[in-house]
Amino acid sequence: MPKTLAEKILQAHTEETVKEAGQIVRCNVSMVLANDITAPLAIKSFRAMGAEQVFDKDKVALVCDHFTPNKDIDSAEQVKLVREFAHEKNVTHYYEGGEVGVEHALLPEMGLVGPSDIVIGADSHTCTYGGLGAFATGMGSTDIAGAMALGETWFKVPPSIKVEIEGTPDQHVGAKDYILNLIGNIGVSGALYKALEFSGSVVDDLSIEGRMTIANMAIEAGGKVGLFPVDAKTLEYCTAAGRTGDVELRADEGAVYERVVSINVTGMKPQIACPHLPDNVKPVDEVKNMKIHQSVIGSCTNGRISDLREAAAILKGRKADKNVRLIILPATPSIWKQALKEGLLEIFMDAGAIVGPATCGPCLGGHMGILAGGERSIATTNRNFKGRMGSLQSEVFLSNPAVAAASAIAGEIIDPSAL
Amino acid sequence: MPKTLAEKILQAHTEETVKEAGQIVRCNVSMVLANDITAPLAIKSFRAMGAEQVFDKDKVALVCDHFTPNKDIDSAEQVKLVREFAHEKNVTHYYEGGEVGVEHALLPEMGLVGPSDIVIGADSHTCTYGGLGAFATGMGSTDIAGAMALGETWFKVPPSIKVEIEGTPDQHVGAKDYILNLIGNIGVSGALYKALEFSGSVVDDLSIEGRMTIANMAIEAGGKVGLFPVDAKTLEYCTAAGRTGDVELRADEGAVYERVVSINVTGMKPQIACPHLPDNVKPVDEVKNMKIHQSVIGSCTNGRISDLREAAAILKGRKADKNVRLIILPATPSIWKQALKEGLLEIFMDAGAIVGPATCGPCLGGHMGILAGGERSIATTNRNFKGRMGSLQSEVFLSNPAVAAASAIAGEIIDPSAL
Repeated sequence: MPKTLAEKILQAHTEETVKEAGQIVRCNVSMVLANDITAPLAIKSFRAMGAEQVFDKDKVALVCDHFTPNKDIDSAEQVKLVREFAHEKNVTHYYEGGEVGVEHALLPEMGLVGPSDIVIGADSHTCTYGGLGAFATGMGSTDIAGAMALGETWFKVPPSIKVEIEGTPDQHVGAKDYILNLIGNIGVSGALYKALEFSGSVVDDLSIEGRMTIANMAIEAGGKVGLFPVDAKTLEYCTAAGRTGDVELRADEGAVYERVVSINVTGMKPQIACPHLPDNVKPVDEVKNMKIHQSVIGSCTNGRISDLREAAAILKGRKADKNVRLIILPATPSIWKQALKEGLLEIFMDAGAIVGPATCGPCLGGHMGILAGGERSIATTNRNFKGRMGSLQSEVFLSNPAVAAASAIAGEIIDPSAL
Repeated sequence: MPKTLAEKILQAHTEETVKEAGQIVRCNVSMVLANDITAPLAIKSFRAMGAEQVFDKDKVALVCDHFTPNKDIDSAEQVKLVREFAHEKNVTHYYEGGEVGVEHALLPEMGLVGPSDIVIGADSHTCTYGGLGAFATGMGSTDIAGAMALGETWFKVPPSIKVEIEGTPDQHVGAKDYILNLIGNIGVSGALYKALEFSGSVVDDLSIEGRMTIANMAIEAGGKVGLFPVDAKTLEYCTAAGRTGDVELRADEGAVYERVVSINVTGMKPQIACPHLPDNVKPVDEVKNMKIHQSVIGSCTNGRISDLREAAAILKGRKADKNVRLIILPATPSIWKQALKEGLLEIFMDAGAIVGPATCGPCLGGHMGILAGGERSIATTNRNFKGRMGSLQSEVFLSNPAVAAASAIAGEIIDPSAL
């Protein structure tokens, strides 16, 4: 029976026969992830279950990236608890301090996730790895605890929505705009417990980083996963990250989709998700007179080197508006170093930016750029829920890195082409 | 009547005749300073006093450096309050976002403080500017509010202690070690409401940055101010910072000192202030088997370019111990950029450091490196009070930048010469 990408990957991880959407299957997992917020809960459950060892010390990743460098005593205690567990259980992939990066940028870079893997993480943006062709999804800390102990979990086979992206994008329009456009189109529940499967000529042309940006936000449409085919580009990326044995992977001809959504990017303007939901999406030219106090460039959505290059191309030789705090957080230490070597950090500093360490920072209201009441931020992050970045009276607008950079210069939300 | 440095500066700012220690004099002030923690209190008092305008819009500095980039909603609201006051009162020297640096590194660099000035700040380390020959001291927010309105305040003329520093220092021994040695010698109350006046051949040879490091910690011995003579070196520094009209300044021959303290630096080992007071000082070779979890290089004490160069000289080609979080916070954006240009940031990142933005960070337990219970940090900061950097069950050891760097590599407190 022809299978979707989601079905093919699940099938590769179970002894049962994957037949149809809605079926429950038990699968072994390739990697189990938690961070400094969620791991403490998972560890507590792990111990309560009476589990003694993690199922495979090389298949658990604990990444202290959210509130680090430790923002307060509570977060310091959380990290300490995770560190002690990692040492006690001899977990190979424990990251904190100078080694830490935003988990969903770090794991692909380290070659810890890739094609045909099943990755579950106690973080909703675990779906990022779908950009590499992994069935990757967020789960609660208790489920993560079970998987840390057993190396397996159950899934309801998701129905799939095929998203075909075609056309020729304008300058300053890219992956972030495609996914925002899709979410605006189908809504924040449009893919609830479904697999989004991306295809089309634009997808073929997209960089792996762009694919991860799109997969990252599958959850913002409610998606269980956001999946990309595995092609030569994917394999090249994974080989460079140190993985071996990966092969190409595509959905079968004749696979069954619940729905097909077509996106034509020709003539598309940069997309802005306005407060307070990621599906409140408008083209940038319909967002007028929107002064900003802050611009954040970073996160698991858009903190990679290609994002920083895009921002630097706009910021070079320009200055951020004096009323805007421009905060740039490269997503991992190696991205940070690469940006330094390429002269991007110098461009950012000359533009008046604050360059911070690799951390999730203000994306989820953690630290490093929290908003007061009445303040407004544009951000390359993934969520603009009420109060997400600070005060309940603050506002977050989501955009691509070029728009965030251009808006920092203009002091208001603007199309980079209008600079 | 011959005068001490403190008396001469006070005399230059009052119409009364400065005669002796203990006398109360009213003085005009050259600069009034507050930060994101203390300015909100000062502003509240300012309004409660019925004050309408600041006495001179060019002589008030408001620097949002402590909890920024905003660590949480409360700190964001504090900054917003200060920002709105600064705009309302047309305050020239308001700093936040990409322009902000640690106040006591920023103001000298901007030429806003210098020889013979009286500077009062709602921050205890305002005494830093004594390194430039300014009578500079910390005050409570209410006093600051009064001075913001009136441009003057009262002082009790402090008795002076003359500190003579002579000898030839070993490698890796410098300004931070001299002041720690002095505090260890006279105690945290040894200079209570007194002026520390520094002199001697070592002082003559010291860089301006080194003098500011020493003056910065005068308060840790209880000092009202820590004063250095104004020499050609000072004038060169101040001219480069854009000041004009400064002149040399020394104490009068025959001035009366309450006490003379002599320090011979020949053979001195790097000094460590052990928990939980800055006067619990030991030579580094007496601090044995002290494993650390964190090393912090930065702050108004040791976050300047010369400090970063010292740290980089140790860190170059080496790696921080895997159990140590090495956090480096250049004190101002221009120090950050200079460190980038000189390749220091690359050395730090290659050593596994976290390089953060210009902020006070964890020094006062703010953010960006807070300690959990049972954790121990070495730090180039100025205070090691119980709980200063986080948990009441954590420990802070103070040192110079070379020791902090070397200890990060060794994983325990160590003399850089022993690396």
